[in-house]
Amino acid sequence: MNDYTPSKDDKFSFGLWTVGWQGVDVFGTAVRPAMDPVHAVEKLAELGAAAVTFHDDDVVPDDSTRGQVLERFTKALAETGMGVEMMTTNLFSHPVFKDGGLTANDRQVRRYALAKVLRNVDLAAELGATTYVLWGGREGAESGGSKDVRAALDRYKESMDILCAYVREQGYDIRFAIEPKPNEPRGDILLPSIGHAIAFINDLADPELVGINPEVGHEQMAGLNYAHGIAQALWHGKLYHIDLNGQHGPRFDQDLRFGAGNLREAFWTVDVLQGSAGRPGYDGYVHFDYKPPRTEDEDGVWETARACMRNYLILRSKVQAFRADPEVAEALAAAKVAELDEPTLGAGESLDDLRNASYDREALADRGLGFERLDQLAMEHLLGVR
Amino acid sequence: MNDYTPSKDDKFSFGLWTVGWQGVDVFGTAVRPAMDPVHAVEKLAELGAAAVTFHDDDVVPDDSTRGQVLERFTKALAETGMGVEMMTTNLFSHPVFKDGGLTANDRQVRRYALAKVLRNVDLAAELGATTYVLWGGREGAESGGSKDVRAALDRYKESMDILCAYVREQGYDIRFAIEPKPNEPRGDILLPSIGHAIAFINDLADPELVGINPEVGHEQMAGLNYAHGIAQALWHGKLYHIDLNGQHGPRFDQDLRFGAGNLREAFWTVDVLQGSAGRPGYDGYVHFDYKPPRTEDEDGVWETARACMRNYLILRSKVQAFRADPEVAEALAAAKVAELDEPTLGAGESLDDLRNASYDREALADRGLGFERLDQLAMEHLLGVR
Amino acid sequence: MNDYTPSKDDKFSFGLWTVGWQGVDVFGTAVRPAMDPVHAVEKLAELGAAAVTFHDDDVVPDDSTRGQVLERFTKALAETGMGVEMMTTNLFSHPVFKDGGLTANDRQVRRYALAKVLRNVDLAAELGATTYVLWGGREGAESGGSKDVRAALDRYKESMDILCAYVREQGYDIRFAIEPKPNEPRGDILLPSIGHAIAFINDLADPELVGINPEVGHEQMAGLNYAHGIAQALWHGKLYHIDLNGQHGPRFDQDLRFGAGNLREAFWTVDVLQGSAGRPGYDGYVHFDYKPPRTEDEDGVWETARACMRNYLILRSKVQAFRADPEVAEALAAAKVAELDEPTLGAGESLDDLRNASYDREALADRGLGFERLDQLAMEHLLGVR
Amino acid sequence: MNDYTPSKDDKFSFGLWTVGWQGVDVFGTAVRPAMDPVHAVEKLAELGAAAVTFHDDDVVPDDSTRGQVLERFTKALAETGMGVEMMTTNLFSHPVFKDGGLTANDRQVRRYALAKVLRNVDLAAELGATTYVLWGGREGAESGGSKDVRAALDRYKESMDILCAYVREQGYDIRFAIEPKPNEPRGDILLPSIGHAIAFINDLADPELVGINPEVGHEQMAGLNYAHGIAQALWHGKLYHIDLNGQHGPRFDQDLRFGAGNLREAFWTVDVLQGSAGRPGYDGYVHFDYKPPRTEDEDGVWETARACMRNYLILRSKVQAFRADPEVAEALAAAKVAELDEPTLGAGESLDDLRNASYDREALADRGLGFERLDQLAMEHLLGVR
Repeated sequence: MNDYTPSKDDKFSFGLWTVGWQGVDVFGTAVRPAMDPVHAVEKLAELGAAAVTFHDDDVVPDDSTRGQVLERFTKALAETGMGVEMMTTNLFSHPVFKDGGLTANDRQVRRYALAKVLRNVDLAAELGATTYVLWGGREGAESGGSKDVRAALDRYKESMDILCAYVREQGYDIRFAIEPKPNEPRGDILLPSIGHAIAFINDLADPELVGINPEVGHEQMAGLNYAHGIAQALWHGKLYHIDLNGQHGPRFDQDLRFGAGNLREAFWTVDVLQGSAGRPGYDGYVHFDYKPPRTEDEDGVWETARACMRNYLILRSKVQAFRADPEVAEALAAAKVAELDEPTLGAGESLDDLRNASYDREALADRGLGFERLDQLAMEHLLGVR
Repeated sequence: MNDYTPSKDDKFSFGLWTVGWQGVDVFGTAVRPAMDPVHAVEKLAELGAAAVTFHDDDVVPDDSTRGQVLERFTKALAETGMGVEMMTTNLFSHPVFKDGGLTANDRQVRRYALAKVLRNVDLAAELGATTYVLWGGREGAESGGSKDVRAALDRYKESMDILCAYVREQGYDIRFAIEPKPNEPRGDILLPSIGHAIAFINDLADPELVGINPEVGHEQMAGLNYAHGIAQALWHGKLYHIDLNGQHGPRFDQDLRFGAGNLREAFWTVDVLQGSAGRPGYDGYVHFDYKPPRTEDEDGVWETARACMRNYLILRSKVQAFRADPEVAEALAAAKVAELDEPTLGAGESLDDLRNASYDREALADRGLGFERLDQLAMEHLLGVR
Repeated sequence: MNDYTPSKDDKFSFGLWTVGWQGVDVFGTAVRPAMDPVHAVEKLAELGAAAVTFHDDDVVPDDSTRGQVLERFTKALAETGMGVEMMTTNLFSHPVFKDGGLTANDRQVRRYALAKVLRNVDLAAELGATTYVLWGGREGAESGGSKDVRAALDRYKESMDILCAYVREQGYDIRFAIEPKPNEPRGDILLPSIGHAIAFINDLADPELVGINPEVGHEQMAGLNYAHGIAQALWHGKLYHIDLNGQHGPRFDQDLRFGAGNLREAFWTVDVLQGSAGRPGYDGYVHFDYKPPRTEDEDGVWETARACMRNYLILRSKVQAFRADPEVAEALAAAKVAELDEPTLGAGESLDDLRNASYDREALADRGLGFERLDQLAMEHLLGVR
Repeated sequence: MNDYTPSKDDKFSFGLWTVGWQGVDVFGTAVRPAMDPVHAVEKLAELGAAAVTFHDDDVVPDDSTRGQVLERFTKALAETGMGVEMMTTNLFSHPVFKDGGLTANDRQVRRYALAKVLRNVDLAAELGATTYVLWGGREGAESGGSKDVRAALDRYKESMDILCAYVREQGYDIRFAIEPKPNEPRGDILLPSIGHAIAFINDLADPELVGINPEVGHEQMAGLNYAHGIAQALWHGKLYHIDLNGQHGPRFDQDLRFGAGNLREAFWTVDVLQGSAGRPGYDGYVHFDYKPPRTEDEDGVWETARACMRNYLILRSKVQAFRADPEVAEALAAAKVAELDEPTLGAGESLDDLRNASYDREALADRGLGFERLDQLAMEHLLGVR
């Protein structure tokens, strides 16, 4: 019997800022005390996670105590067997970043921001993180005249090119991952979706070093299908990292635990990540980026962390059963899903073969595709009634 | 005095399917009779447009009368001095395309669809159109299991590669433009945004021949900022064509006349198209893709066509006044908008120069950016009170 | 073992326009032939439904054959034991209704529309329908000047008052149910949400005769929580009928089969309908208003109809298990859910008792509510892993 | 020449929390120092506002200094001639309210919350405020099981009934106004729209004492048309107060200055407020509830306050010109807008007159309504090109 208890092999990781979120929002103050990162590491290890991730300021907000804090932190990692798989920079909390970091209009702010990233890339390398995320939450604008988007992309590219060159030069085993988001906290954020970020990466000096870190809720805030988005990212070879959570469509960034929000899309997300339909999946860390609601005390926080992993394992098990079900196989065949793998133009065919062929348009039009039967089978696997 | 009357130099163009829309929607039948394409050409010419565009089926739905229909149509073009600047294929109306055209699961459907495109690329070349648009409105899915997104992208790429090779081989002066849309009529459409389409294009065999044709409403249906989107497209050199109209955010595709919907974003859209802030603008046809509401008779149809062009000219005039206003120049300077053009790392500087510099973070944080004053100036130009 | 097969006792009903939808949308033509209403009745009976519903035009579009058509239709009802539980009027398909029916600016249109409703109320009574629905899909506007909203509400009220008086006078056992929708096909529709409709009803001459018929997707198109909405409607005693289907948040009206779309909200919807937490539920017909996707042939149509009912039964079974689970009871108690039933001011207490009491604000603030644990228990019932 | 400078006769008022917003959001800390309420009163008076509004905690967060703070505050009001036209209670910032105030599951929290409101109703009466607003931002839920919506409505009603009785008993000249919002900070908020709130009010013990305070952005977050919403509220006699600001559709609560966001809807909003089409308008205070973006320093804050009022005056002037324009009058007549005022059933007519009349359906259907011409005239007034 499957008890859906995670182990380190499942490669679950959590941002320290997730379980450590104190609950400050636009309308209210902290509901929970600050959490000691060492405590977070210990509890997450106990719950079955394999790694943690953090922004510089989550662990070492204060330069004067940096050394001793890091010593204590790395000791906790060693004792728990937890890794730091990803690191990132906080370029959004301090008011200096109110107009962004790497694309702030003020050049001094940009320089300060870039120096902050560089310094923490060193720390990431030191701690063994192999992914370095950039979420540009403040890189954007509320109004049309205040931000020259093309200049901003020039500066974004400049920074990314500098960072890639630096990592190459230092010989770090680190790849960058850009995290798109359409809006909030800025009115409109640069690189608002998976697509925009991948398009941008293609124009960098060293595109191999840069991929994306898409977050479920961020794509869904734009009404986009997350499972489709990561499938396209995998097609481009750009899914370097993921942020799993839950969201209810276009509205504020809810950062619910994984599974909450759009449950059916969560099923298909796990399907893509696991490698659906014979296609390669995602083999990186399964990273959760969510916020335990303000209604919860610390016990509730650990309940949400536990539930994120548990829901992933439940869905993984259901996805596997779905893909192994002979009736599903039959429905997939009836829906001609695999026929989409066949080239439209056959080997050795010319365009004239294609053009001169005769097509029985009405007969083709009449043929039902049976997609609803297939989807109902998936839903019944999800609901556990098959 | 500016009377905002268009001339052919303004390069306005209209899809024949716009003024010719009969008003069929999910809940109702046609409210207007079919419009003769020749009549549409004549009226649009009279109103000041320079060109028309069409789907194959808009002009030549019936093979048996194709020759004589085209003869009459090209005669009307010649007599009115109107061009066909863009053509496209209808791969969505007939039930054969219910699961898409170029990415339908059924290989026979894909073959039929590709043959249909090829045939009409020939017609486009014959008529002198230099842009060929692909809007994949039925390329998508309602459910997660029915469409293998990566296989679909393989097939989309296969078709685009074939089409590019064909155009090269024939020596046609034609570039392709992909038109993204997030959803409707399919539950989720492939290449849902400007970003996704540009990312896809980068992986084609002949990316130089393919750009995008973004539509105002399609981006806004995902809550995305259209002016930002086309600025990024211009940054990538991919804004090959545009579709202007109006929309009220995430909801059904409204296809309102240009100016209706998000008026402030329309202002910034024209600003980007005209070449804001010393950056190159868009120099192609200003193309309208909208639907005259069902409440209108034919007079109302021409009123909307007239208004699309008139609103563009009004906004163009306002954008020019905004950019020429000395107080705006001062506000832009105070907001350091142009400072974003300066590289973050100075010529000859090393990363150590950046890292070892001292930053007065609190002083930088305290500095107001004056974005609201700048935006209010823009709004007052828009409102005509400056 | 539960096989989730419906019986007439489950009181499932279907609009004839659902299974009969031919697939015409803004971008495409019919994919399925017209369905004989008699065939629909027979198939739905076979699948386990108890009743059908229809717009006048769905069954009797043509006056000249009205008598014989109705005779054949009622015969089929009798033979299958199916009832007509609800009827409604098509005030949206014909172009005469392009600006609405009961609130069209043109008085002649309003008169024609009201006469159409009256005539069909008679038919409803004749067929034994006890609910008469009004969905005002074309009652609205695309632009601010064209519709005087207050005049429109006056006219809506006039019509409703006339209809109520008529039903009273005729002694019909019929109640009216208004179906709200925020937009589509009109840019903005009058009475856009459950709340707006109930507010309106309160100002009618005979509010007892009028309730609402809320549709899952219509509320979700506005990002509203359907389960909350029907709970408020029940609180007001106004949930006279329901329309179940599926939707993916703010976008076009998808009309997916029940269960598709927001599955977690579907669970809570069934919970409210079944009478959660000791509160009375909904005891009317469980009515589905959805559209089988265009990808389906007739077999696929019946698959979706079957799945709507099956998903309801699956969810009902899960809701019952959730409510019966002792661990859930404990979690509900910990979350103090039932404490909300207790009056805030105790019997016999004065406001001074309340004001002069001492409150340990910090202790109250520190207390975790355990909502996430409770929600995870619900999710695990939904997923079938408890 | 109109210089759009406000005077006290314009009855503009501002929440002290608007200009005093320090910029704390989910992702960042304060960007501006706390603002002294006395300073805010003085500056707003200088800019032309007539009144201020506040939550208890905005002015008197600390009991120990309450007396002297109020003395200084009322002195500033007297010196500047500013009034306090509305007051409200902060039932959302402190963690004690994390599950709401008046509808918190925890009865002690509800009692504490109600006592807090009662105390501040006394202060409102003392300061001469005639409107008391209740925004229940934390009254809601993130998950379906944690909140019994009907019990919550019972408690909401209980509190409102107590408050109304108290105000009657004390003889206060105060009316209550409920402010609806669909979501944020809670996942779903009770009474999510104008309609839901009015429906609720109708079931209170003393509905005459309670109306609504709708906020532009809150309705637009649900994709609803604000101008339509306040028109319906006026129809019900329930528009007791307003909150003007700007928003870009379904996304996080942006609280932009009035005019930013949906400018065309702002025009129609002012049209309704001013009394369009011969109908009575709104004669209360024109209240702004917005947040100066974090990019602004204090100068920018005053620029936004100035712009809110200025934009209202600009739009008022344009609305007046639109309504006075003879061509608009003609277009309104052609669109039969005023014909909607005529009863559908004529005086003395019977239903048989209506039913037996003959209707030329096709002729009625053919008639164009000219709504686009009318809307274009409105747009040209808005743009200042007429």
